[in-house]
Parts: sequence; C-alpha cells; structure tokens
Amino acid sequence: MAMLDQVLARIDAELDAALERLFALLRIPSISTEPAHGADCRAAADWLAADLAAIGFDASVRPTAGHPIVVAHDRAAAGPSALFYGHYDVQPVDPLGLWEHDPFAPFVETRANGSRAIRARGASDDKGQVMTFVEACRAWKAVAGALPIPVSLLIEGEEEAGGENLPPFLAAHADELRADIGLICDTGMWDARTPAITTMLRGMCGEELVLTGADRDLHSGGYGSAAVNPNHVLARILADLHDADGRVTIPGFYDGVPELPDQLRQEWERLDFDPAEFLGAVGLSVPAGEKNRSVLEMIWSRPTCEVNGMGGGYQGDGFKTVIPARAAAKVSFRLVFDQDPHAVRERFRAFVRERLPADCTVAFTEHGAGRAIRFPVDAPAFARTQRALSEEWGTEAVFIGAGGSIPVSHQLKTTLGMDVVLTGFALDDDRIHSPNEKYELESFRRGARSWARILAALAD
Amino acid sequence: MAMLDQVLARIDAELDAALERLFALLRIPSISTEPAHGADCRAAADWLAADLAAIGFDASVRPTAGHPIVVAHDRAAAGPSALFYGHYDVQPVDPLGLWEHDPFAPFVETRANGSRAIRARGASDDKGQVMTFVEACRAWKAVAGALPIPVSLLIEGEEEAGGENLPPFLAAHADELRADIGLICDTGMWDARTPAITTMLRGMCGEELVLTGADRDLHSGGYGSAAVNPNHVLARILADLHDADGRVTIPGFYDGVPELPDQLRQEWERLDFDPAEFLGAVGLSVPAGEKNRSVLEMIWSRPTCEVNGMGGGYQGDGFKTVIPARAAAKVSFRLVFDQDPHAVRERFRAFVRERLPADCTVAFTEHGAGRAIRFPVDAPAFARTQRALSEEWGTEAVFIGAGGSIPVSHQLKTTLGMDVVLTGFALDDDRIHSPNEKYELESFRRGARSWARILAALAD
Repeated sequence: MAMLDQVLARIDAELDAALERLFALLRIPSISTEPAHGADCRAAADWLAADLAAIGFDASVRPTAGHPIVVAHDRAAAGPSALFYGHYDVQPVDPLGLWEHDPFAPFVETRANGSRAIRARGASDDKGQVMTFVEACRAWKAVAGALPIPVSLLIEGEEEAGGENLPPFLAAHADELRADIGLICDTGMWDARTPAITTMLRGMCGEELVLTGADRDLHSGGYGSAAVNPNHVLARILADLHDADGRVTIPGFYDGVPELPDQLRQEWERLDFDPAEFLGAVGLSVPAGEKNRSVLEMIWSRPTCEVNGMGGGYQGDGFKTVIPARAAAKVSFRLVFDQDPHAVRERFRAFVRERLPADCTVAFTEHGAGRAIRFPVDAPAFARTQRALSEEWGTEAVFIGAGGSIPVSHQLKTTLGMDVVLTGFALDDDRIHSPNEKYELESFRRGARSWARILAALAD
Repeated sequence: MAMLDQVLARIDAELDAALERLFALLRIPSISTEPAHGADCRAAADWLAADLAAIGFDASVRPTAGHPIVVAHDRAAAGPSALFYGHYDVQPVDPLGLWEHDPFAPFVETRANGSRAIRARGASDDKGQVMTFVEACRAWKAVAGALPIPVSLLIEGEEEAGGENLPPFLAAHADELRADIGLICDTGMWDARTPAITTMLRGMCGEELVLTGADRDLHSGGYGSAAVNPNHVLARILADLHDADGRVTIPGFYDGVPELPDQLRQEWERLDFDPAEFLGAVGLSVPAGEKNRSVLEMIWSRPTCEVNGMGGGYQGDGFKTVIPARAAAKVSFRLVFDQDPHAVRERFRAFVRERLPADCTVAFTEHGAGRAIRFPVDAPAFARTQRALSEEWGTEAVFIGAGGSIPVSHQLKTTLGMDVVLTGFALDDDRIHSPNEKYELESFRRGARSWARILAALAD
C-alpha cells in the first residue's frame, strides 16, 4: 500500500481518538470577545501547543497584547514549505436559551438518515477545521515518521474579536513565518458534495462624509426652501451614485475592472448556484444590482458601492420640523481586479464635491482601503490542491470567489508576500455564529483526509 | 379732547403704574414645562384674573388637565365682539449663567442713546404683550367707564409646553368664547418703526415613511448589489422630490396654489426685507429653493417640502458594512392657499409607491394635517386695525405672512370659525426663548396705545 493510502487508512481507523481530541478542545469555552473567558482562551492555546508538541512540532504559545498565538514548526522535510492558519477562539453563545444543548459539551448526533454531525460551539468555526489539518499531520507523522513538506502552523485567538494583534505579530515574525504557500481552513464547501478553493477576494474602500449647511438647526416652517437642507443634498448625492441600470456613476470607477476571465466564467456557470434560493433565504426575490450581471458576478467579481449608513435631522419618535445643520453617510466600495482604492476614494470625493450647492460644505473620513486579491489559479499549489480535493471527494473541486473579505489572507499576501490556498469543509447550514452550531462528521473525516492528500500533492 | 385722545393720554400718564403691574406679573416664574413651577403658573393665572376683575371684568381661573386658563368677559358694550388671546407661561431660563441679571427680577434698562427696555423672562413673550391689551382696557374703563366693544380674554398657561389642553377647552366652551373677531398679541413688528398684521399662515402635512427590504440586516460584502438596499431606494425617492429648479415634483402638488395676489405682492415688495441678512444670520448666503422666487415668497406664500429627518443603517462611530433591512424618513409639507393636506398626503404616498423596486415595501405614518389660513385683509376688522396701527406708529402698518404655524390662530379659525387679527409689538432682537429677553418700553407704551385705538376702530 502506498504511503498516502496508509495515511488515509490511519485517519479512518483513528477517527474516534481524533474526535476525543477535538472534543477536548471544544470543551474549552474560548470566547475571545468576553473578558471572563480570557483564561479559557489561554487554555485553548496551551492545549493546541501541547497537542502539536506531542506530534513532534516545535510548538509555543506566544503572548500578544490580547489573546496568545500558537506557533508550531516541523520543517524537517525538503520541498516547498507551507504555513497553515486557523483560529482557536469562538463566537459568543448568546442567546443561550436557543441552544438545544450545552454549547461546550460536544457530542456526535446521528440523524434519521444515518448522517452524523459534531455539535458544539466552534465545531465548524474553526476548531473542527483546524483539527482536520492537525489530524492529517498526526497521521503522516505516525505512518511515515515525517511530514511530506515543511509545515508551520499559526493559530490565533482573536479572529472573532477584530484580530487587531495579528498584523503586527505577522510583521514582527515575518522571517519566521514566511513560507512558499499559505493554507487556510476557515471557509466552506461549494455544497455537501463539492469541495471549493476561494481564489478571489474583493478589496474595500470605506468613506464617511458629513455635509454641513446652516450654522445651527433651523425651523423648517421659518426657513424651508430658502435655507439649504443637507438631507436633500445628501439624498441627491447618494441617489446619483447609481444609474438606472445599477452601475456606479463615479467617473473612472470601472477602470481596472475587466470582464471575468473565460476560465472562471465557465467554472462559475457550471456551479449549481440558485439566485432564487440565495435571495429567498433573506426574504428577497429579485436581484437588485447591475443589469445583465449574474448574482455570482455581483457578489464575487463586480465592484459595488453600498450606502451602509446615512442619517440627518430628527429620527426619534414623533415629528420635529427641523432643517438639520448636518447630514452624514457611510459608503463602502468593494473592489475587484486592479481597482485602486485610493483612486476610488479621490474620485468619490470629487464626485461629492461637484454636487455641493452653495452654502454646503463636506468633511470626509477614511475607513480603510485595500486592493482586491486574486490568487493564481494556474500556479502549481492551486492545481495540486484542486486535484487532491477532487480525488478525495470524487467531485471536481471548484474555484470560487468571496464577496466579503478574509482579513488574514490579505495580511499574508501583503505582509508576507504569500499566496494562500483557502479551502475548508464547512457547509452553509453549519450555523456558525448562531445557536446549535455543528460540523458534519464527514467534513471532519474527509477534511483530514483532504489535507493528508494536499500535503502529499504539494510535495510532488 | 375726544374720548380716544383722553384714553391715550391716560396710558402715557399712568405708564409707571402700568410698569409696576407688569413687573409684578414678570416676577412670577411661570415656566410651564417645569413641574416645579406648577404653583407659579397658578399664581400667574390668579394674578391676571384678579387684575382683570379689578378693572371690572367677570374673570375666572379655569382648571384644565394641565395649567389653568384665565377667562374674562366685559360685554357691556354694543357692537362687534372681540376675543383676545395671550399666554402667561414663559420659556425656561437655562442656561442661567448666560443671563446678565436675574430673569425674574424685572427692571428698565436705559441705553446710551436714551432708549429703554424692560428686561426679564417673559417681558416680550408674552406677558408684556398681554399687558399692552390689559392696560388699553384699563384706560378705556377709567376714562370712559366702559369698553368700546364687548371684549373677552383667554389667557392660557401652556403655550410654551405644547398647548394640548387648549383645543378641547375651546371646543368645550365654544359658545362662551366665540366672538366676531379674534385678537392675538404674540407676534412682532416688521421693524422697530413699522407695525405688522400677520394674515397668512401656512398649513402642514407631516409624513413618516419606513422602507423595508430584506428580512434582516445583511453583510454588504456578501450581498452588496444583489440585495436591495433601502438606503439607496430612500435616497432616490427623497432626491426625486425636487427638480433642478427647486420645485416639488409630486404630480398635482401645486394644485390650488395661485400666484401671490397683486396687492400682497406689492406690499411685500415695499417691505425692506434683506434676504442676505436673513440668511446670513444663520451662516448662509444663497437662497436654496425655488428658482425665481423671492425668499419672502418661499417662506410665506409658497408650499415647501422638507426632509426633516432620514436614517438607515449604521450611524455610530466607526464603520459597519451592513445593508440595513430598513430605512426611514420624516417629510413635512408647508401648504398655502387652497392646497388640500389630505390630497397632498395621498399624492406623496403614490409618488413613493411608484418608486419602490421589487422586494421593497413601505409603511406610512401620518403626522398632522392642516390647511393654510388666509385672513381676509379687506374685511373691516383688518382694515380698521391697519388704520389704527398706522395712526399710532406714523408708518403704514403692513400685512405679512408667517412661515411657521401659530397653532391657536388655526384653532380659533377651525374650532370657533373666527378670523383672527394677529398683531404684536415684539422686535426680532427681543431674544425670546433665549437668555436676556427684553421688551422695548416703547413697544409696551405704544402697544397699549395701539390696542386702545384698535378697540375704538373696531367699534366704528
């Protein structure tokens, strides 16, 4: 039996022991946002470092200004190196009354159809996913005595709490942590049968604007029409941002935005994505944005402009006939391909300024700027991961996009210069961040097997 | 000497005694909005009823659910009857540190140029103005033994506190209070030399709308563009309410809005109104509303549509990339001439509904509806009052409009069917509602003389 097959067989044979290990980690209520759970976060880090040391990693718990970060290395092998990222912290469990069981008393539930799920807070996000990788390493070490490639792990404890201590940690330990490829297990399958690699992440540009008219709030009975109303000016500016076809009207906004490459378009067309189901889940039925664009394009590969907040004047109960001195809005742009967030910001500001009437001034505040990231789907690490996933699941793994941002992948790219393979085994119904979180037992077992294959594939 | 001249001479001769009476009333801190001053409000009502009884009125203090209302009658004379309205309550005095003197220790200040002012909270709004009428009555009774016409007074104590107990009181005592003409002394002169009668009051229609999209707040990274954003829909609707020329675009909105009658247009053109000064006082310089309309037209005789409040999504510190489930606005319309507030409301709602995209619903809440009021400037009471004021001040009294509403004049019109002569002797710099309120001594003296003349003129 080939070495990989022995490793895969061991994973299957040792599944119960692996579950016991995962349960030990799941029992630690490492809720990073709640100060009362600070010791639990430390305990989860200690547990991971000890488990990795038991496998043979050089493991340590590194302090930060917040919760500690676990770093572990096993670089005995030759070949391209990998840095695996995960997080040991979990979301809060409120409202506790909606849970059908103790969120920190993990168990395996067997359903009527025979399928099984691991139930606990963190089962899917992200302890179960982290342990798929750890179990793959453990099996390789047990069977072959060594990993196929040099591997480091970076497991943080503040992913659910803003993660502000990670970027300086990465910068301070860049030489120690840099590897040939990053591996992140914190995303999901395309569906229960189809593994996925997330290769496109949109960028962001956030802007806040405050319009000012008169030097005080005015009575609209006494000044209406004669005095500029910042609410009217703001509404006009925000309405002008999109045309009737849903396109953003800021001049030059689409500079650097090509049509989707044919390869990705064909892949996405093959995906069994149902826009009606996607929208129906949140009470909607009709795509609202750009005409003649698919919903997947809109959320993965097209830039967007959304007014996340706006307000001016009296918003309390009842009614006040006021012309406010000020009105404000928060606007975010999701960026794709080669859009420059700083250019978008300047063009947006010019767009606003051009629309200011007499007696109206504007102040802007910047809220973040980051370029979109596309990982090279034809680079060896991606092709090999795709092949390994496809072999494990018996279904061709797909390259997908992501509407939101996954900050750590941006940080690994920008701070360490690394490409990152984002793959994971969560399902849409895992209820992460909600009561009754679960992780399919098959996600756990085949996730570990997937990583065992990926480590082998990356060594080829 | 003719009777009227004797009355006027007595007002001048008795000025110091009249001031002592006014001071006694001003010393009572009858702040209607502050529960701690409930007894003071009652004391002010008692003082007025006693003073009116001393003159010979049948005066009483009537309880309400809030502060009492003073009602007094002297209907011995023949001729057309009048109901005078004023209020004995005053605004709060915060911030007390900005007063240069005790707000309830009235005194007469003599300026370097010899002019004199009565300083105290309520000196102008409205105790000083109320006492101009009372002193006119007192002088008529002292000199002629009777008033020229039947007179009733209605002096309330909640004008600065919402006045919600007045309408039911008017309705319950309609037969007792109804007169041939209403007289209100709670407004101002056009300028220090020119008396004014306010004859146009705009109506109001208030609407609140709440737009709803998805059934929950969404992450704009995951749903942006694809999911309808109620902020965008609201901004578009609010922006559509006005065209580039500042006109309201709701179909039929201007039905019942004629051009200003020539008589009023000519009167207003003669007024020495400075739009630059009006706007400059609040930090503005350019009229914002309808093109080719004067500022006076905009605030007195043109209908307006103002967004008094709007809001949706995240408005706190920092930034959240949310697509809100809801966005809301409060919109008020000032109405003129024959605009029907109910028709305006229905047309506005249709205008909003026509602009709703798929998956977006709207709920409306009504916040008041009232027609504009125009009093008949060519009716005898108005012409006679204008003549009496012009004679007293040596300057032609002017008919003016008012941008806001003066609720009691609407109530007298709608509940009792009475036309109302609104005239008063306050000046723009009286600092009503602010620290260091004052009333010109000449306003007080010539105000009393004005009422003495008006009572005589109404009897003609």
